[in-house]
Amino acid sequence: MATQGQVITCKAAVAYEPNKPLIIEDVQVAPPQAGEVRIKILFTALCHTDAYTWSGKDPEGLFPCILGHEAAGGSIEILLNAKDLFFVWSGNRVVESVGEGVTEVQPGDHVIPCYQAECRECKFCKSGKTNLCGKVRSATGVGVMMNDRKSRFSVNGKPIYHFMGTSTFSQYTVVHDVSVAKIDPKAPLEKVCLLGCGVPTGLGAVWNTAKVEPGSNVAIFGLGTVGLAVAEGAKTAGATRIIGIDIDSKKYETAKKFGVNEFVNPKDHQKPIQEVIVDLTDGGVDYSFECIGNVSVMRAALECCHKGWGTSVIVGVAASGQEISTRPFQLVTGRVWKGTAFGGFKSRTQVPWLVEKYMNKEIKVDEYITHSMTLGEINKAFDLLHEGTCLRCVLSTSD
Amino acid sequence: MATQGQVITCKAAVAYEPNKPLIIEDVQVAPPQAGEVRIKILFTALCHTDAYTWSGKDPEGLFPCILGHEAAGGSIEILLNAKDLFFVWSGNRVVESVGEGVTEVQPGDHVIPCYQAECRECKFCKSGKTNLCGKVRSATGVGVMMNDRKSRFSVNGKPIYHFMGTSTFSQYTVVHDVSVAKIDPKAPLEKVCLLGCGVPTGLGAVWNTAKVEPGSNVAIFGLGTVGLAVAEGAKTAGATRIIGIDIDSKKYETAKKFGVNEFVNPKDHQKPIQEVIVDLTDGGVDYSFECIGNVSVMRAALECCHKGWGTSVIVGVAASGQEISTRPFQLVTGRVWKGTAFGGFKSRTQVPWLVEKYMNKEIKVDEYITHSMTLGEINKAFDLLHEGTCLRCVLSTSD
Repeated sequence: MATQGQVITCKAAVAYEPNKPLIIEDVQVAPPQAGEVRIKILFTALCHTDAYTWSGKDPEGLFPCILGHEAAGGSIEILLNAKDLFFVWSGNRVVESVGEGVTEVQPGDHVIPCYQAECRECKFCKSGKTNLCGKVRSATGVGVMMNDRKSRFSVNGKPIYHFMGTSTFSQYTVVHDVSVAKIDPKAPLEKVCLLGCGVPTGLGAVWNTAKVEPGSNVAIFGLGTVGLAVAEGAKTAGATRIIGIDIDSKKYETAKKFGVNEFVNPKDHQKPIQEVIVDLTDGGVDYSFECIGNVSVMRAALECCHKGWGTSVIVGVAASGQEISTRPFQLVTGRVWKGTAFGGFKSRTQVPWLVEKYMNKEIKVDEYITHSMTLGEINKAFDLLHEGTCLRCVLSTSD
Repeated sequence: MATQGQVITCKAAVAYEPNKPLIIEDVQVAPPQAGEVRIKILFTALCHTDAYTWSGKDPEGLFPCILGHEAAGGSIEILLNAKDLFFVWSGNRVVESVGEGVTEVQPGDHVIPCYQAECRECKFCKSGKTNLCGKVRSATGVGVMMNDRKSRFSVNGKPIYHFMGTSTFSQYTVVHDVSVAKIDPKAPLEKVCLLGCGVPTGLGAVWNTAKVEPGSNVAIFGLGTVGLAVAEGAKTAGATRIIGIDIDSKKYETAKKFGVNEFVNPKDHQKPIQEVIVDLTDGGVDYSFECIGNVSVMRAALECCHKGWGTSVIVGVAASGQEISTRPFQLVTGRVWKGTAFGGFKSRTQVPWLVEKYMNKEIKVDEYITHSMTLGEINKAFDLLHEGTCLRCVLSTSD
């Protein structure tokens, strides 16, 4: 296609400063270098992690940047093995271009960019114990690409930082090849973009990290998208009691559809919430999940676990500098404190599998989408995200 | 024997007040009631938990009491099924008497009293997930026996509290039947008394709680008896690097015999010890064990674990009211924080198995015994415990 090896100018939402409205403007997206894929983003959802970095509270947040990490699109340009070898494809919903050395994904593929890479070669990937691939972390953590430690985004020659190795609030983005999951081209991209972050995080926290068994009692703190995905994961794992905990009682109705079958509002009780849950469950739950990012709630989630075996999984992302604490006796008497990132899923390998599960109606996705808008309405969409009634808002990037 | 159903007067070390020398004096030991066993203690070791409660820092410590929980002796009286049925036996090293309803142990059996009970009937015992039997906890936690919520010890009619359900600093003690492990009568009691606490705690932390695999890297904070038992456990589990960490470098020589093959003294480094260990091990250890009871060290032990999978086990008992803390990011990026009590061993079932392993020379016990004294020298023995050269001091209770 005409854009191969060329700079593409397209619309993106640029965060110039913390807490200031995102600006939709023309950005230049450089072609992919070795090991990189240029993607035409078609749909992107908003997640609280975007809002967190945008707020300025993330000490690793770099500005100006292009946020966004929960999206789907198409590879449109891929640089393979030699710098002069380009796959060319013309279309509007697939990988646009791929850099040198990229073999798995080709122009025309439908993809989900993944903020958690999977190289299958590093110590982490080979360990068989974690999904936390380390290959490109040193670059994605500071808003650049590995190959030349520079950004592929610019506005009038001034570089704009990448974000989480994805930067999906743009019509085109460039990501590392190890961060691209190739998916079934029949999957509706306006839905499966959600499989880039929140839904897998919740499902995987249950299936991979906690490994909830049939008959278990589960407590879920926070009934946003991630908490609801935890509920669905717990239900499919055969949990018996799935207790939702939220300071907004209106959330229980929706949560029921995802598997929550009991509800506690901490505001309705004088006692600390961990004591309420312990009393309710004859000693505590088998598994608890913190899906908010509040360190006090993380403590409550641990302490509402049953002595001897209760396992608490931290799913939410706390603000920088904050610490969790408890009495060591909580652990000595058999509770286990863990955490999860992207639900422990190996991104390139398992996101396509999650897409298949969705296509087979084995997991929900549509039910999380409460709003649909365009990229141009992104500031309004962020306002919605902070309202209790919005789970996921999906933005179309088309003009 | 003459004592059946009678009060026995014998020597015991009574702690009348925190931090005041123990007084060796005549105590009256009442006969066992239903579900109880009276034991003639022959050998008892000293453990730091005794010293902790004696110090007055344990808010649950009750005075006056008879401390001690790492011992061996013989059952000499057992009350079985009906109040008038007694087994009678004459000897000097076995169970003395057993109360109503006690079927597993009989007068004449050689036993190790276990501070962690195992009833095989409660929710905990039946869970298959923990050794933390809850059957007698409500009584042992407040220094009395379950049957009548009273003590079996008295001095001139004034009750003396039990301690940890064992109170082994006495020539005779009364314990719950669920707290008695019947062992091979050929086992030397002056050695296997150590299998009542410290050695199983360390071995089990590795085998049961962490489940260390062959080829693992392990860090052990604190090279006392428990830390050395962790080292032995790690060695038998096939760990490759076993890094001992202690502020007393002299401990390395002894530790080598238990499997420690690298040593770090935090005082030799400017950097926090977790950073030293991370640097030394290309990202952190697979497993770490805190065997001191210091909450700052607990944090270091967690944070020296490898991202993605490192597991830290709290083995030491921290002073009351102290809290552990860390950034939740440590857990979200794959580290796991756990704890262990009695190494996760089911006491009645597995202490006899540990005795067999010792008899088969599969685990060390003799090597931990650095001093031998008599019950009358107990105050001197406690002084020794605080010196770096003492691992375990075994007291003979014979006059």
